[in-house]
Amino acid sequence: MNHEHNTSLADARRIIAAGEAKATEIGQPMNIAVVDVGGNLIAHARMDAAWIGSIDIAINKAFTARMFDLATADLAKQAQPGSQFYGIDQSNNGRVMIFAGGIPLVRNDEIIGAVGVSGGEGKQDQAVAEAAAAAL
Amino acid sequence: MNHEHNTSLADARRIIAAGEAKATEIGQPMNIAVVDVGGNLIAHARMDAAWIGSIDIAINKAFTARMFDLATADLAKQAQPGSQFYGIDQSNNGRVMIFAGGIPLVRNDEIIGAVGVSGGEGKQDQAVAEAAAAAL
Amino acid sequence: MNHEHNTSLADARRIIAAGEAKATEIGQPMNIAVVDVGGNLIAHARMDAAWIGSIDIAINKAFTARMFDLATADLAKQAQPGSQFYGIDQSNNGRVMIFAGGIPLVRNDEIIGAVGVSGGEGKQDQAVAEAAAAAL
Amino acid sequence: MNHEHNTSLADARRIIAAGEAKATEIGQPMNIAVVDVGGNLIAHARMDAAWIGSIDIAINKAFTARMFDLATADLAKQAQPGSQFYGIDQSNNGRVMIFAGGIPLVRNDEIIGAVGVSGGEGKQDQAVAEAAAAAL
Repeated sequence: MNHEHNTSLADARRIIAAGEAKATEIGQPMNIAVVDVGGNLIAHARMDAAWIGSIDIAINKAFTARMFDLATADLAKQAQPGSQFYGIDQSNNGRVMIFAGGIPLVRNDEIIGAVGVSGGEGKQDQAVAEAAAAAL
Repeated sequence: MNHEHNTSLADARRIIAAGEAKATEIGQPMNIAVVDVGGNLIAHARMDAAWIGSIDIAINKAFTARMFDLATADLAKQAQPGSQFYGIDQSNNGRVMIFAGGIPLVRNDEIIGAVGVSGGEGKQDQAVAEAAAAAL
Repeated sequence: MNHEHNTSLADARRIIAAGEAKATEIGQPMNIAVVDVGGNLIAHARMDAAWIGSIDIAINKAFTARMFDLATADLAKQAQPGSQFYGIDQSNNGRVMIFAGGIPLVRNDEIIGAVGVSGGEGKQDQAVAEAAAAAL
Repeated sequence: MNHEHNTSLADARRIIAAGEAKATEIGQPMNIAVVDVGGNLIAHARMDAAWIGSIDIAINKAFTARMFDLATADLAKQAQPGSQFYGIDQSNNGRVMIFAGGIPLVRNDEIIGAVGVSGGEGKQDQAVAEAAAAAL
């Protein structure tokens, strides 16, 4: 696949490094994952002492952000009881994460992958994901 | 693995015995499970007449408490609709339990495993888990 | 359920203790699991340093031995390519184990549960399971 | 967890870098994954143009090598039809990989994690895994 239209391993590492820097700054170890244009994992890093249960969540937040081309924080609002996408987390073999920390990666107005962050409070995950995504 | 930094089978049995004593005291048979520092099962006991459906729940409450380094009773509050971790129970292949009864095991300020209890009301599960964890 | 017709937690612990004694004698740490007449877990113990991957296998060997009321070593012969039960390990959500180490528990000519052992060579698992089952 | 008895993110990155160097040398892009002492993912990297289907395989080869404390190439021999562990790949929710490319990581005679490599021929995966493991 043409790398202009996809995320490369080098891109993923730059994104993860930026996320780690932010996580270190706020003092909360994180799992950070990057998926490509197909939603498939390119790279993942669990910082020392980060939650083990967040490995899966970080990867699936990235997956979700690319599956629906939106931030998981935005999906969260629409997946609450009574909202239009309530129950969407049952789809895709349970891989859809409906809380903050997943953000699409955009290059030249084209979504080319996504980053997912998990390991802290929702606001922390979101802040780290934003710092990571900005490094693309 | 160095047992100073992990839970041993002897530790797990002492923890389970303390939980059983509490369960007997309150008259509610329980499933009690202990996982190690990696979240993997060390020992499980189902007291006679305890719910069969709670085998899986006890094991996964212990798993959850180690995956996120917190009591499942605390996670429960944050996993309600509208809260920051709503939907987290979809992660980790459905093994995340978001109600009371799972507690991390702490030795020398380090989390070295967790205990999970299931078989009664939430308060009963929690009381037995607390008695069990205190025996580490 | 009438305990004359089922395995109790006290039975399970006696069985596991006998298995542990044999495992210690042969110098191979093991996972030992006991299921009841319904194939549901009563108790499990992972000896220190036993394989982590054998937790699931021990539990499922016990499950398999009760599901089909035979030793998994016997099922193994019939589950090879070209044999009559080839492919049976695809059934029951992948829980059917087709190698040695699972043995039904018999009381008064009635199968009331099973024991499963995993952590060593097939012959070792079988020897420990036999020692364990004999303690019923 | 005490890092003397576990694999750190820095360790994992050094291991992956060594694997990548070998993969580049032999001209075959690879997925390389490192798990900790509990079998849980620390880091993963998919080199550009490596097989997407090998993401899961690399992670699970590492998992398998730690679950049974042996190289998956050795497990392969014992998991063939007629051999003692035939059918073991059904266990652990289908995560057991029974072909070459997974190797335990050893520090001071203690297994502290594992590396898994997937993306090429079995011999290539094995060669890259060996180069990776040697960098611990």
